Amino acid sequence: MKIDILTLFPDMFTGVFNQSILKKAQERNIVSYHVHNFRDFSKDKHQKVDDYPYGGGAGMVLTPQPIFDAVQHLTSNKNNKTRIILMCPQGETYTQKKAEELAKEDHLIFICGHYEGYDERIREHLVTDELSIGDYVLTGGELASMVIIDSVVRLLPGVLGNEESARLDSYSSGLLEHPHYTRPADYKGMKVPEVLLSGNHKKIEEWRAKEALRRTFIRRPDLLKGRILSEQEKKWLEEFQKGE
Amino acid sequence: MKIDILTLFPDMFTGVFNQSILKKAQERNIVSYHVHNFRDFSKDKHQKVDDYPYGGGAGMVLTPQPIFDAVQHLTSNKNNKTRIILMCPQGETYTQKKAEELAKEDHLIFICGHYEGYDERIREHLVTDELSIGDYVLTGGELASMVIIDSVVRLLPGVLGNEESARLDSYSSGLLEHPHYTRPADYKGMKVPEVLLSGNHKKIEEWRAKEALRRTFIRRPDLLKGRILSEQEKKWLEEFQKGE
Repeated sequence: MKIDILTLFPDMFTGVFNQSILKKAQERNIVSYHVHNFRDFSKDKHQKVDDYPYGGGAGMVLTPQPIFDAVQHLTSNKNNKTRIILMCPQGETYTQKKAEELAKEDHLIFICGHYEGYDERIREHLVTDELSIGDYVLTGGELASMVIIDSVVRLLPGVLGNEESARLDSYSSGLLEHPHYTRPADYKGMKVPEVLLSGNHKKIEEWRAKEALRRTFIRRPDLLKGRILSEQEKKWLEEFQKGE
Repeated sequence: MKIDILTLFPDMFTGVFNQSILKKAQERNIVSYHVHNFRDFSKDKHQKVDDYPYGGGAGMVLTPQPIFDAVQHLTSNKNNKTRIILMCPQGETYTQKKAEELAKEDHLIFICGHYEGYDERIREHLVTDELSIGDYVLTGGELASMVIIDSVVRLLPGVLGNEESARLDSYSSGLLEHPHYTRPADYKGMKVPEVLLSGNHKKIEEWRAKEALRRTFIRRPDLLKGRILSEQEKKWLEEFQKGE
């Protein structure tokens, strides 16, 4: 997979791309990251990339030319499809389902604005996706694009080793994870539940299934909507509802 | 505000903290960032920070000792309240409301795991908040904590300059932003709507209000729930519903 990033702050990406899984994925030639300053594509003599909004109002707006030209440069001589992703608060809310979809692509381009608005023609005529990572305001699209890149790259075949992929993630079962405990069994008076020390694997599995359901019921009941419940799960839910 | 981060990957933060708004905020002494490798707090002779889970199963679990000791070190000799925030997929979904709440604090500590689970005693007896930035799986809590730090720091008084804060953000009005346009009025045949070139400020304001509502109706109808609509907004929504 080839990942291109258009930004005015290319140095923000260095630390993140040079550590952990994202670094390993590039070393194994599974992915390559290319960070571009789209100011380099400006045809303005002062390399300006923004201008005042038509119709007045505060703030600046990114002009179409540098971003259109940068994307054209990155997609020329290419036959395969490219996803051109605009990071913006108005975008579709990003989820794991979208991560799985993007993980199937060969080429992703991320466009990251910073404080400024995007000229609407960029949205209408250039990009294939507009994404938001959540309902909060960020200074720019850079961190949001790193979040998406991390969640996509870890899904690419060969990226996660056995140890890493062995960690059940919180969405794969449709429930939140059950609690984990490790040594010591007693840490300053805080103890590990006895069942986990019992060696009775049937009971341990049952405890984990129940606690995963309990945590989901308490913290994220929305995840239970539409779930097909087993008889056991129905009984547990009744218990939780009674506050037992 | 003092921000401490506990992580096994301290170098991930360098690029992000040394750019743009986050850098300026530190230069102006409004905030200070301190990134700690919690491996340094391990009392294990091999500086181990994780161990196998009680009850069996795949993956490793972060042990309580290094994280408890690191937090104790960072909160000793302090009278004021500290928010101790665990980044995890099971956490409360982070929103702008939470950003505003955290922006009022003096001291935030972020605990970032990486692939591994947390020993449950960390959740139960140490942290004040468990946060998730969205419904997708990340390799670790590092990027998630950077997202939260960015959204909080930009709210601190004196951080955003006039130009930056002048940008209306997408959640402040409860609606998504209206479309923006800047020069040129015609870019390769793609034109700016005429109303924005008209100089008629009343019409421009009306167009913007309507387009903000339209965009919200199409993309994020959930944001309209509970909104008190003006008569004009009601009429426009009827129009949109009829597909006009």
